Amino acid sequence: MIKRIELLLLAWLPLTLFATDVTSPDGNLVLTFDVVGGRPTYSLTYKGREVVRPSRLGFELAKDKHASLGLDEQDLMEGFFILKTDTTEFDETWQPVWGETRNIRNHYKELCVELQQEVRIPRKVAYEPNPDIHMRPMVNYRYMTLRFRVYNDGLGFRYEFPQQKNLNYFLIKEEHTEFAMTGDHVAWWLPGDYDTQEQETQQTRLSEIRGRFKKAVNWGNSSVAVFSPTGVQTSLQMKTDAMDIDGQRRSLYINIHEAACKDYATMHLELVDSLTRQLSTELDGNSNRYTPNPEPSPYPLPEPFTFVSHLTPDATGLKGCMQTPCETPWRTIIVSDDARQMLASNLILNLNDPCALDDVSWIHPTKYCGVWWEMIVGKSSWNYTNDYPSIKLDQIDWQSVKPNGRHAANNEKVKRYIDFAAKNGLDEVLVEGWNVGWEDWANMWKRDVFDFVTPYPDFDIQMLNDYAHSKGVKLLMHHETSSSTQNYERHIKEAFQLMNRYGYDAVKTGYVGDIIPRGDHHYSQSMNNHYLYVIKEAARHHVMVNSHEATRPTGLCRTYPNLVGGESARGTEYEAFGGSRPDHTCILPFTRLQGGPMDYTPGIFVTRLSTWSDNPSWARITICGSLALYLTMYSPLQMAADLPEHYEQFDDAFQFIRDVACDWDESIYLEAEPADYITVARKAKGTDNWFVGGKCDEQGRDAVVKLDFLDKGRKYDCTIYADAKDAHYEKNPQAYTITKRVVKKGDTLRLHEAPGGGFAVSLMAK
Amino acid sequence: MIKRIELLLLAWLPLTLFATDVTSPDGNLVLTFDVVGGRPTYSLTYKGREVVRPSRLGFELAKDKHASLGLDEQDLMEGFFILKTDTTEFDETWQPVWGETRNIRNHYKELCVELQQEVRIPRKVAYEPNPDIHMRPMVNYRYMTLRFRVYNDGLGFRYEFPQQKNLNYFLIKEEHTEFAMTGDHVAWWLPGDYDTQEQETQQTRLSEIRGRFKKAVNWGNSSVAVFSPTGVQTSLQMKTDAMDIDGQRRSLYINIHEAACKDYATMHLELVDSLTRQLSTELDGNSNRYTPNPEPSPYPLPEPFTFVSHLTPDATGLKGCMQTPCETPWRTIIVSDDARQMLASNLILNLNDPCALDDVSWIHPTKYCGVWWEMIVGKSSWNYTNDYPSIKLDQIDWQSVKPNGRHAANNEKVKRYIDFAAKNGLDEVLVEGWNVGWEDWANMWKRDVFDFVTPYPDFDIQMLNDYAHSKGVKLLMHHETSSSTQNYERHIKEAFQLMNRYGYDAVKTGYVGDIIPRGDHHYSQSMNNHYLYVIKEAARHHVMVNSHEATRPTGLCRTYPNLVGGESARGTEYEAFGGSRPDHTCILPFTRLQGGPMDYTPGIFVTRLSTWSDNPSWARITICGSLALYLTMYSPLQMAADLPEHYEQFDDAFQFIRDVACDWDESIYLEAEPADYITVARKAKGTDNWFVGGKCDEQGRDAVVKLDFLDKGRKYDCTIYADAKDAHYEKNPQAYTITKRVVKKGDTLRLHEAPGGGFAVSLMAK
Repeated sequence: MIKRIELLLLAWLPLTLFATDVTSPDGNLVLTFDVVGGRPTYSLTYKGREVVRPSRLGFELAKDKHASLGLDEQDLMEGFFILKTDTTEFDETWQPVWGETRNIRNHYKELCVELQQEVRIPRKVAYEPNPDIHMRPMVNYRYMTLRFRVYNDGLGFRYEFPQQKNLNYFLIKEEHTEFAMTGDHVAWWLPGDYDTQEQETQQTRLSEIRGRFKKAVNWGNSSVAVFSPTGVQTSLQMKTDAMDIDGQRRSLYINIHEAACKDYATMHLELVDSLTRQLSTELDGNSNRYTPNPEPSPYPLPEPFTFVSHLTPDATGLKGCMQTPCETPWRTIIVSDDARQMLASNLILNLNDPCALDDVSWIHPTKYCGVWWEMIVGKSSWNYTNDYPSIKLDQIDWQSVKPNGRHAANNEKVKRYIDFAAKNGLDEVLVEGWNVGWEDWANMWKRDVFDFVTPYPDFDIQMLNDYAHSKGVKLLMHHETSSSTQNYERHIKEAFQLMNRYGYDAVKTGYVGDIIPRGDHHYSQSMNNHYLYVIKEAARHHVMVNSHEATRPTGLCRTYPNLVGGESARGTEYEAFGGSRPDHTCILPFTRLQGGPMDYTPGIFVTRLSTWSDNPSWARITICGSLALYLTMYSPLQMAADLPEHYEQFDDAFQFIRDVACDWDESIYLEAEPADYITVARKAKGTDNWFVGGKCDEQGRDAVVKLDFLDKGRKYDCTIYADAKDAHYEKNPQAYTITKRVVKKGDTLRLHEAPGGGFAVSLMAK
Repeated sequence: MIKRIELLLLAWLPLTLFATDVTSPDGNLVLTFDVVGGRPTYSLTYKGREVVRPSRLGFELAKDKHASLGLDEQDLMEGFFILKTDTTEFDETWQPVWGETRNIRNHYKELCVELQQEVRIPRKVAYEPNPDIHMRPMVNYRYMTLRFRVYNDGLGFRYEFPQQKNLNYFLIKEEHTEFAMTGDHVAWWLPGDYDTQEQETQQTRLSEIRGRFKKAVNWGNSSVAVFSPTGVQTSLQMKTDAMDIDGQRRSLYINIHEAACKDYATMHLELVDSLTRQLSTELDGNSNRYTPNPEPSPYPLPEPFTFVSHLTPDATGLKGCMQTPCETPWRTIIVSDDARQMLASNLILNLNDPCALDDVSWIHPTKYCGVWWEMIVGKSSWNYTNDYPSIKLDQIDWQSVKPNGRHAANNEKVKRYIDFAAKNGLDEVLVEGWNVGWEDWANMWKRDVFDFVTPYPDFDIQMLNDYAHSKGVKLLMHHETSSSTQNYERHIKEAFQLMNRYGYDAVKTGYVGDIIPRGDHHYSQSMNNHYLYVIKEAARHHVMVNSHEATRPTGLCRTYPNLVGGESARGTEYEAFGGSRPDHTCILPFTRLQGGPMDYTPGIFVTRLSTWSDNPSWARITICGSLALYLTMYSPLQMAADLPEHYEQFDDAFQFIRDVACDWDESIYLEAEPADYITVARKAKGTDNWFVGGKCDEQGRDAVVKLDFLDKGRKYDCTIYADAKDAHYEKNPQAYTITKRVVKKGDTLRLHEAPGGGFAVSLMAK
């Protein structure tokens, strides 16, 4: 420990004197911390190459009418010096309740820096009885801790605010965490938006973000609020130009995201470029969905190619209400020169707290089908009647209203799905549109939109649950909140009690449309608190949660493993809304899935929707590409999203969905490149069986899978589901071959992936 | 009924053609309705004298990104014509669960006007496949109903919006209901404020409001948000200059308020004067508590001396989210040339819906004392420890923290209050500060401030309830929400379950400080919905509610009689915060009490707080003035607010509080003048006993009470509690005389009221 007295003397010198280094356990990453001109600053290298140039840390705080002495309102930007540094190492292996691997090693070196900030109180707010004293500037001190954890696969760091006299409650105007990139990297990005992450990923150089931005926004989404023409979301995947690393020409893969975001606003990144802070009129044509920062920061901007954090505001434009002791989420930078390592990283899970639930026996991986796709496609409806321009729940006699004849969640259809699930070993059946209120549910600023307990007249909740249970199947509950969160919280206890009564053990929640109360956003501090409140209330009722349109995950499923899935990205539904690019599913594992599993709802076999509905849209994937997603898009919750009759039409291919596991002892990423291809082998939990999946972009490719991971001396029944030679996601998506053979360790499989296609392999130990 | 075809032709003429009159049952009031230049307009006369000059009605609507064709966004201001008018009469007598009288007559004549509005859709938002059609202006129709009820004591009217194709959901930018006064009346007003109504009432001419405004604001309140230098609150009491009425020189008393405000923003009134819409800098010195309307209305202003409605906004500045069918609260104008009639009016209760509760057997009038005044005064504390600069509920081991030694809600003290209540026939004992969280509860933007179920270690909830019940007393629950409404709603079910478990049947709720989530206001639509949600949830648990710092009441206690009281004004606590003017309690019955009873917490006997605490404040009232309040400030919930030891010191005077009823079969206002004096006689429910109380301002006076209301031929034991001759609210507040005699109908009592004093009389039938 450095002596405090020296620091008091020396911290005033403007230049670096106390730079502190911490190295990852394998020595590849080096984190350097320093205080430069009173501002905390960090940088990061990987194998000797700069990853993050010196980047500053800090907070602007808001002025509030309730502050007492004014100390809680001074910015946490300048005037810092180091009080104490501690370096420690941590190494443990833990077992997730469900996951890609049975064991996860959490091994890092930690640098903990305690900072002291000198704050001069403006005289006008300092009151002293003696007017002479009154004239002297009052100096006070505040304290902030920075904690850095350096892993072999990246860096996590966070701010911590100890409880202290001069910093008890504060309002965040903006967090100013910088991530200074070393050049004009290629990035896979979504436009920064306070309310949606359901856009197509853009692939551009950093310098091209501004030019692409307006086109990248999904203006038609049910809730859109962009804030800057260079604002992007995390998790942000980047790739550098090739450089010399270990004597080879390699690129670095860099991912910026966050971990353990609880009761704190979701972070976006704003890229500083040469036009930043010029008056921007680029988004004015859509001004009612564009929320510019009302007041730019007075602090000097960093250099171009730097990302600066931009938090999601509340209805009044502020970013957070804080009470010490508290801390921010971890800001994460995953880095490697091997793209496969980006997918294998557990850094974000490791930075989350261990499981907070005592009993996890009721949590289980789940394969399910559901009354869903035909509504998404537009062939049937969530709502029961069309006879009212709007409804109020307490003013409708549901028994006497006229049905529209298109309501999907009816007894007959649900029984059909239950039968299908039972026959094919699926665990649960999701039923959307079972409860009253769907007649006018979204974006009406209607608070009391659902009650979550009243079924439509043609949905016999007791009978259907009994019927399902008699066949070993469970129904999967659906709670669409329509983003009226106060309404959901008012009903949530009764809603979960109803689930307990009828034997539901999982719920899909939804947050379509703008948040009610007006002015709040999907990714604000209050909404992030709400999502976690729901997860905790669900756990109290032994309910698993699959949260749609909620904020992007940050690994909280480690602490709350009943959070078994989520959406928070562009899911399969968009195949019915105009389609997604074929490379979309080769990007998501690098970005969205870093924070936790996604309920992508794969498995579309009949991709031309016009063959069975009026929907002209079509899914950009082959049948074998769809099968591959059950492996490349890891989730403990996997849907077979297409209709039972479509699966019956391709029953031999459906066999793979019947067989595939969704919980794993081991996972090996064999091949990977963002937006191009992913190949992974996974060993099914508690068995000796392996499954291998490969998914590629619109180019097609040939994969080479060396079966080195099999047990030596053992034989495996191998079934290969591969795209036919002439298969193509648009022209010939249903052409596949199924081949069976016996294989052993050391064998090699050469597998053709059609454009927009993929393959799936099951390896059953004999 | 006027033929529609004629209307279609004639409604375009700019001048009055179809003015419709409705007269009150006694013929004194005449309401005239008309459509002038396309705008609905009303006026009101009383005994041939103009009360409200022609005043326009309408709504500005907000533009919203989710609107479809734009029809829901067109203002409801112009282009109206009359489709149909209906005049009906209604007369019934109903019995309140509790009240000032056993029977209430609801007798009115009603005018119902169905209006049609022609709306021309701006072409840019009208989409038609044929571009030729596209160029024609599209005309559509919308419908709005105005319902006027004319009583002998005033007028109520509201807007109703039927369900219709072109008006389903709309956002209110502002309601433009005008109340055009006939001159520069004297008014008793509070500064219009979105968050507090705890100011001293101002008495000025209308023209003097602007000049007085800044001084009238209680800038030190825990939550202040004023919006205009001529904005005032309702209920607003006015008095005209004397005029010839029925051959006498009389003034008119006029009161503007509202009835049945549910899921709608509370209304303020903005006075139009010659300076209106000039740029106002008058409030800039307190700009962080001043929220000017962001965008002035484009419609022409009315004449000076007109009040225009101004609703409380949400966090984004809008005033309401509406879904048809729906209606506004009633806008009420009580009018009389007899001030006593203002106090006797039941107009606001009558305009509310009948009781919505099936079982009201658990609702009862209540006299109570409480562990409260000594904390308000500052002698003891709500919080248990002083050892933390801030606390988090889930991080404190309450058993091991160091007590501050000042915590009032401890077992010993509460038992002392229970003993006192039992000995003196008080029904309940309020205990504030019983639950953890008071260490840092207010205005910290701290969401999770209380859990409403965890007692401090020195409050044995089981023992104390058992002890109270063994003596025939109940404890009265306290839920301070600190205005963190989301937190309260999350805990409310468990909080009420805890009350049921221990046998509480009433709760005092509190909303101190600014609303969380930030940006919302105490009187917004969402908060008014919240208060009603709490009342309904309480009713489900058979809990009576006494709501402090909530919005001012509008008669909802008729529909939900478990709403037994509220604060929503400057209560007795201000006697410990610097004091209130002696005439304050002679104004409140004309203003605040129009909407429902107030938990004023009267009964301070030891008015110099410095005699028993360090508080230099003193109550501006004599002991007999305090006794009078139990009659002049009607409430079914009456507190004996002072300390038991203070009552024991004046046990002979306290006898009146022991004796007085708080539920009545009959009430007769004998004398009244706003801010000067009120004398009332009340007959105790289910008995033949009467009580008479008189309260006056700082002038003192002599009251003459003719006992004409007693039963003929019956004798009554009369006890008179009167100010001594030399009593004075400041110099000699504890000087009183108690006289006993036997009286009969026709006798006259001459009673001296000291400056700031009053009298109380009990008349027990022999």
